[in-house]
Amino acid sequence: MPIFIKKRSKNVGLPPGTLIHIGEKKVEKTKITLIDYDEMHFQEREIEAVDESLRLKDQPTVTWVNIDGIHQVEILEKLGRYFGLHPLVVEDILNMGERPKIEDFGDYILIILKIPYYYDKISNEIETEQISLILGRNFVISFQERERGIFHPIREQIRNGKGRIRNLGADYLAYALVDSIVDAYFIVLEQLEESMESLEEKVLTNPIPETLQTIHNLKREMILLRKSVWPFREIISRLEKEESPLIQESTKIFLGDVYDHTIEVIETVETFRDMLSSMLDIYLTSVSNKMNEVMKVLTIIATIFIPLTFITGIYGMNFRHMPELGLRWGYPMVCIVMIGIGVLMLIYFRKKKWL
Amino acid sequence: MPIFIKKRSKNVGLPPGTLIHIGEKKVEKTKITLIDYDEMHFQEREIEAVDESLRLKDQPTVTWVNIDGIHQVEILEKLGRYFGLHPLVVEDILNMGERPKIEDFGDYILIILKIPYYYDKISNEIETEQISLILGRNFVISFQERERGIFHPIREQIRNGKGRIRNLGADYLAYALVDSIVDAYFIVLEQLEESMESLEEKVLTNPIPETLQTIHNLKREMILLRKSVWPFREIISRLEKEESPLIQESTKIFLGDVYDHTIEVIETVETFRDMLSSMLDIYLTSVSNKMNEVMKVLTIIATIFIPLTFITGIYGMNFRHMPELGLRWGYPMVCIVMIGIGVLMLIYFRKKKWL
Amino acid sequence: MPIFIKKRSKNVGLPPGTLIHIGEKKVEKTKITLIDYDEMHFQEREIEAVDESLRLKDQPTVTWVNIDGIHQVEILEKLGRYFGLHPLVVEDILNMGERPKIEDFGDYILIILKIPYYYDKISNEIETEQISLILGRNFVISFQERERGIFHPIREQIRNGKGRIRNLGADYLAYALVDSIVDAYFIVLEQLEESMESLEEKVLTNPIPETLQTIHNLKREMILLRKSVWPFREIISRLEKEESPLIQESTKIFLGDVYDHTIEVIETVETFRDMLSSMLDIYLTSVSNKMNEVMKVLTIIATIFIPLTFITGIYGMNFRHMPELGLRWGYPMVCIVMIGIGVLMLIYFRKKKWL
Amino acid sequence: MPIFIKKRSKNVGLPPGTLIHIGEKKVEKTKITLIDYDEMHFQEREIEAVDESLRLKDQPTVTWVNIDGIHQVEILEKLGRYFGLHPLVVEDILNMGERPKIEDFGDYILIILKIPYYYDKISNEIETEQISLILGRNFVISFQERERGIFHPIREQIRNGKGRIRNLGADYLAYALVDSIVDAYFIVLEQLEESMESLEEKVLTNPIPETLQTIHNLKREMILLRKSVWPFREIISRLEKEESPLIQESTKIFLGDVYDHTIEVIETVETFRDMLSSMLDIYLTSVSNKMNEVMKVLTIIATIFIPLTFITGIYGMNFRHMPELGLRWGYPMVCIVMIGIGVLMLIYFRKKKWL
Amino acid sequence: MPIFIKKRSKNVGLPPGTLIHIGEKKVEKTKITLIDYDEMHFQEREIEAVDESLRLKDQPTVTWVNIDGIHQVEILEKLGRYFGLHPLVVEDILNMGERPKIEDFGDYILIILKIPYYYDKISNEIETEQISLILGRNFVISFQERERGIFHPIREQIRNGKGRIRNLGADYLAYALVDSIVDAYFIVLEQLEESMESLEEKVLTNPIPETLQTIHNLKREMILLRKSVWPFREIISRLEKEESPLIQESTKIFLGDVYDHTIEVIETVETFRDMLSSMLDIYLTSVSNKMNEVMKVLTIIATIFIPLTFITGIYGMNFRHMPELGLRWGYPMVCIVMIGIGVLMLIYFRKKKWL
Repeated sequence: MPIFIKKRSKNVGLPPGTLIHIGEKKVEKTKITLIDYDEMHFQEREIEAVDESLRLKDQPTVTWVNIDGIHQVEILEKLGRYFGLHPLVVEDILNMGERPKIEDFGDYILIILKIPYYYDKISNEIETEQISLILGRNFVISFQERERGIFHPIREQIRNGKGRIRNLGADYLAYALVDSIVDAYFIVLEQLEESMESLEEKVLTNPIPETLQTIHNLKREMILLRKSVWPFREIISRLEKEESPLIQESTKIFLGDVYDHTIEVIETVETFRDMLSSMLDIYLTSVSNKMNEVMKVLTIIATIFIPLTFITGIYGMNFRHMPELGLRWGYPMVCIVMIGIGVLMLIYFRKKKWL
Repeated sequence: MPIFIKKRSKNVGLPPGTLIHIGEKKVEKTKITLIDYDEMHFQEREIEAVDESLRLKDQPTVTWVNIDGIHQVEILEKLGRYFGLHPLVVEDILNMGERPKIEDFGDYILIILKIPYYYDKISNEIETEQISLILGRNFVISFQERERGIFHPIREQIRNGKGRIRNLGADYLAYALVDSIVDAYFIVLEQLEESMESLEEKVLTNPIPETLQTIHNLKREMILLRKSVWPFREIISRLEKEESPLIQESTKIFLGDVYDHTIEVIETVETFRDMLSSMLDIYLTSVSNKMNEVMKVLTIIATIFIPLTFITGIYGMNFRHMPELGLRWGYPMVCIVMIGIGVLMLIYFRKKKWL
Repeated sequence: MPIFIKKRSKNVGLPPGTLIHIGEKKVEKTKITLIDYDEMHFQEREIEAVDESLRLKDQPTVTWVNIDGIHQVEILEKLGRYFGLHPLVVEDILNMGERPKIEDFGDYILIILKIPYYYDKISNEIETEQISLILGRNFVISFQERERGIFHPIREQIRNGKGRIRNLGADYLAYALVDSIVDAYFIVLEQLEESMESLEEKVLTNPIPETLQTIHNLKREMILLRKSVWPFREIISRLEKEESPLIQESTKIFLGDVYDHTIEVIETVETFRDMLSSMLDIYLTSVSNKMNEVMKVLTIIATIFIPLTFITGIYGMNFRHMPELGLRWGYPMVCIVMIGIGVLMLIYFRKKKWL
Repeated sequence: MPIFIKKRSKNVGLPPGTLIHIGEKKVEKTKITLIDYDEMHFQEREIEAVDESLRLKDQPTVTWVNIDGIHQVEILEKLGRYFGLHPLVVEDILNMGERPKIEDFGDYILIILKIPYYYDKISNEIETEQISLILGRNFVISFQERERGIFHPIREQIRNGKGRIRNLGADYLAYALVDSIVDAYFIVLEQLEESMESLEEKVLTNPIPETLQTIHNLKREMILLRKSVWPFREIISRLEKEESPLIQESTKIFLGDVYDHTIEVIETVETFRDMLSSMLDIYLTSVSNKMNEVMKVLTIIATIFIPLTFITGIYGMNFRHMPELGLRWGYPMVCIVMIGIGVLMLIYFRKKKWL
Repeated sequence: MPIFIKKRSKNVGLPPGTLIHIGEKKVEKTKITLIDYDEMHFQEREIEAVDESLRLKDQPTVTWVNIDGIHQVEILEKLGRYFGLHPLVVEDILNMGERPKIEDFGDYILIILKIPYYYDKISNEIETEQISLILGRNFVISFQERERGIFHPIREQIRNGKGRIRNLGADYLAYALVDSIVDAYFIVLEQLEESMESLEEKVLTNPIPETLQTIHNLKREMILLRKSVWPFREIISRLEKEESPLIQESTKIFLGDVYDHTIEVIETVETFRDMLSSMLDIYLTSVSNKMNEVMKVLTIIATIFIPLTFITGIYGMNFRHMPELGLRWGYPMVCIVMIGIGVLMLIYFRKKKWL
């Protein structure tokens, strides 16, 4: 079963704003990478400590700080202080059980999203991880539970100066990150579509109990996907309509594009849920049909032979006075009668379309 | 299974605005036809290259450029530049996996729609293709995956000057194209209604496993149709309410008409879904009823003959001291007793309404 | 199956506004009757041709033109021109497949409604017919597919000067016509309620396959009724809120009344759908229960007699050395043992509550 | 089946505003009681005829006229004229098939509500009756189909001057009446909860066909209750928000309280419906489980004894040359073989967990 | 069954505002504790009587009065008078059957919430208790049915001056209390998730009737949880948007956080309901599958041995003239024929995939 709520009992009773990491620890050590770029310059390095001059605030370049692994509370605390984040923001980033959401704090915007990944491809088990983004005036900070490579292409584009990313601001970078997160859903959905196609064939041709479990698993994954992608709609729609100076008009047309993709993800999940319900119906009916067939075979055999056996039973009785037993043609006649009964039965079954 | 999401993995990781065709290549060569008309003039020709003087911008005539086959990225790119389209617009037109939508870019409006067609009439398999329209001040560009003939009547009307189309502007032409796309749904729905009528009869009279598969297939097609037609509502409603100078007041009354038709398509799809659910219930119950009948026959035969066979078994025992065996009327009496039991059983079954 | 979409293929491809009758031809000849009245005067006559002076436009009386049979396109075309109707309006009136709707054209309001009638009372088959109304400044035109008598009482009231109808304007007449159309739903629903009451009894006492078909038919009729009455809500609500000079304030209080009735029709249809679903559940469970009962009888008979028959089989074996066979009390003892087994079985079944 | 629509056929075709009583006649004679009070004075009397000076209009006291039995059309007609009610109002009061609603006529407000009562406690049959209220500037008129005692406590409070009722106006009286009507739902729901509790136990421990019928009946009652209480939400909410001079600000806080209770009634009905659906599932599954158990017994008995009987059949054959028959230990050996087979079968069933 | 509606019959008929305790008496004696604090001072004591100087109104400190046990009507009445509460407010606090709600009375805000607790961990039985909060200008009063310890951590934070609670006003205290109530839902949900995980495994591996009951119980608890948490959404959203001077801007950011948690609780409950429906489907299908397997075993045994027994029956007949009986190889040949039939049957079953 995918985990629907993270253990919160840990921080129940603590005053709000107390920083504590809720969730599984997925990497050994927090890794911080910094990319700093504008149209002309590009700089990329790994940061050891947060105290080190992370960036110059008055610089006009765009700074992207990416954090992989967020269980080291003290690092995030320092980072929060360095960038002037509200304590609740850092608490939310640390809590893996947060619902996807967007919050505008004036100077910066907090975006919390979920990214799906295949935990186990054979059993179609999907899990989600949390990715938090902070979009400031000329910086973006991204927090991942673990490096999963989904931001590689963006990094590559910045490095090579491909596309328009180097010419545009931090808001375009944030858009690109959100876009790649939505794309991750498409990748998962494509694989799920393949699973469903093979499942559909199985359901119709050879429904076995394992098929049922696969349907059940897929249904559960759909519930999980739906729960994690549903809030995207509102988040991206709010980003699009935000009157914040952090987001430029020219970026909003791109956000409209991501919004369309999000709607498509949601609709596809809904479509898949509908189809899984339909498959469950088919499965149940197939099982019913099979049982019906079994019953027919039993009934045909039993209804033919039970009366015949009764006849043999009659002439197996040991009464002294049974005139038929002494007849010359008694045996062949009884055989003919029995064959006649059998044939009549078969005709009846044919008429009933049981054969 | 109809394809619900197109392989997007192709462009995952590419910077947005990178032009790439996503979908199946359906025709060998892109074919561009140009129709240019006003009340007086009419001109129709096939275009070889986009560079050729497509149209004179300052001319007051209406220009309709129709593109069949959109896998040749470079042609669309040129066209996009020629008409001054935003790169994201061309990207959307190239991506067959787009959701139907409308976007107003000020100088032109992008409309993306889906058109249904029968992929396989016997198995009721429906697929959809994407048709994109660009409505500019005095031009319309339509993009189809393949020539399917649905725009023939409009072309005919323009050629012959039938109807009011020659007297009205590009917005009326766009309306006529959208209207013919909505009509394509009616044609598919009519055929589906026929399939459902024959299915309904089968379900009630002779439910076989194939019937189940037909129900399942039809259900899936309904999901597909619903997914592709649902956004029309909003698209046409927005066209109707658009404050754009591209759409004249006089055209809006026609759009109201298309809107009504769209609502009817949606409602009919919903009605069909309701009826298919109902048919599945009927199917299941019919199967249950049939099994019940089989069980009854088995039970009647078995409950009549098993006790009788037991009686014959008694007198088939080889005990030396069984007084009945020596009786003169033993055999006939046993026969009478057995007939009596059989008759009593039959009366009981009749009372139970099993016969 | 009721017809959910009318064949539109006829006019697919024709330019909008081309007049063509879509639907079945139900009467031989179009019949036009004209009633002209005010508080003092009353005149009623049948019109042969539309050219004849239908009415004087500047007259202050209320004119009601009723058309029965609308397949004669040319008559409607003339009428449309005479009253200055938009070509799309006449097209909508001619198309029996229109969805109920209201459209305000400034000078007149078009209202399209559906009226239900029993096509076949025994199989509870309901069909709908389309009634279109045009409400002008001092005239009302009504179009029916066939004369069904639902407007008789209104005609009678006008003739006799009963009620307030003669004192009020064309808007009150339109209200009265809409009210009688809504009443037609109540008449159908009353008959359906009776069908459902008798059905409910059958389902609980004697569920046979025919009951299932009746449930299915009723469900289908509910879908049809719902589809045709649902848009009334919006239509009447819009009439009530319309800022049109065609509708006086004093008439709106009556419209509020029709609105309430419409809501009741819709709610009753929903209630009936709920109850039919519930009945289907009951039916299925009753069938299950019956099968359970059949199985119990089979099981009781089989489990009692199969072991006993086995015992008789043992002593029917022909082994030379079977000491029991020679015993004086062998036969009676075996009989007692068998009776004992039978009694024990019966006690067991009683304990299991199978008897 | 509770009656969902009252016979309206009676007044179909009559002009609106024609007064006619639709519904069952429940009491012999209409009884009119009048209570007139203010902080100081209190007067209560039974009225014989409406002509009698019902009340003095310019008096500042609050007048409450209660009518039990509303089939005597002429009395209501007089009353309507006396209080200056619109003819449609009197028509609505007379029509028992009205949907709960509120209408503000400026000088007075019409409120139509439904009150539930137990028609038959054993079969959980609930019916509803209509109560109409007219709230004027300093009077309230209440119309009941039959005296059911729900207004007794209010009458008692007025008589004894208990609570604040004597100090407040007609709007507070109307509130108190509505409150007692909502309370009537709680009383019915409490009894239904008890029925459901005992039902739930039965479903889990001993599901018999009667349980099914009880579930079905309760479901039907829930549909009825829902239908009659659902419009309360809107009615009371509109009363609360009404800008009418008839309702004072101080009364609105009490209306907020009734609103909360209404929401609770609606939610409880929904909760009960959910639980009934759940119980039906349980019932079906219990029946399935029971059948499964029956099948197992049959299968165990049959699969053990059928092969054994076959063995006895072999040695019951009359072939002259069957060497086993002559063996000294033939019979005991066959017996041992048969016991062995039986034991193996039992072990197999135990392994399959059928025992 | 959890109690969905509290016995209200007690106060039916009483004038509104009559104080009466509705619900179970859960503690012997009402216990009142008072905490008074600001940044510098802290005071905590138990109050014996309400008359005692509860607090000084003009003091700038925050006062928190907590009442455990609310069946002593007279104490609450005094308290209500002391703090100037509206009689309906005290009535609502006393009535355990109230729906969660918020009401702004200008000088103070009434918040009524439900808190879930495990009544019985083994049978997953959850009950809810009512907690009412009064937020005044510089005081908070909390009413609990029984001391359950959920406010302990907050008390601890105040005592120790941990977190920001001592620096902030009564609105922050109210927020902290609401937050701890929402946390109580997470604790219950975590335990439910564990129950569901173990349930899911059981359903797939070993579905027994007890599993069904567990599913049913969990479903019921979900209905209860949903009913009690659903109104939180609106309550907290209204608190957040309230224009009341009682709530400061700085507190609203914390309320946004609780709002997110509430949404998560609601979504988790919905997710659990979806999964329980899915599990019920699985359960039913597993039972079906098991029955199918039983039927197959029966059918295989019966269809193999019934024909064979028939053959033995033939040669057990006592006809005098049966040539086969005298044959030397009669017996072995019959045996071979019977073995042949058995093998053919087995091959047929294998082909049918029943083995």
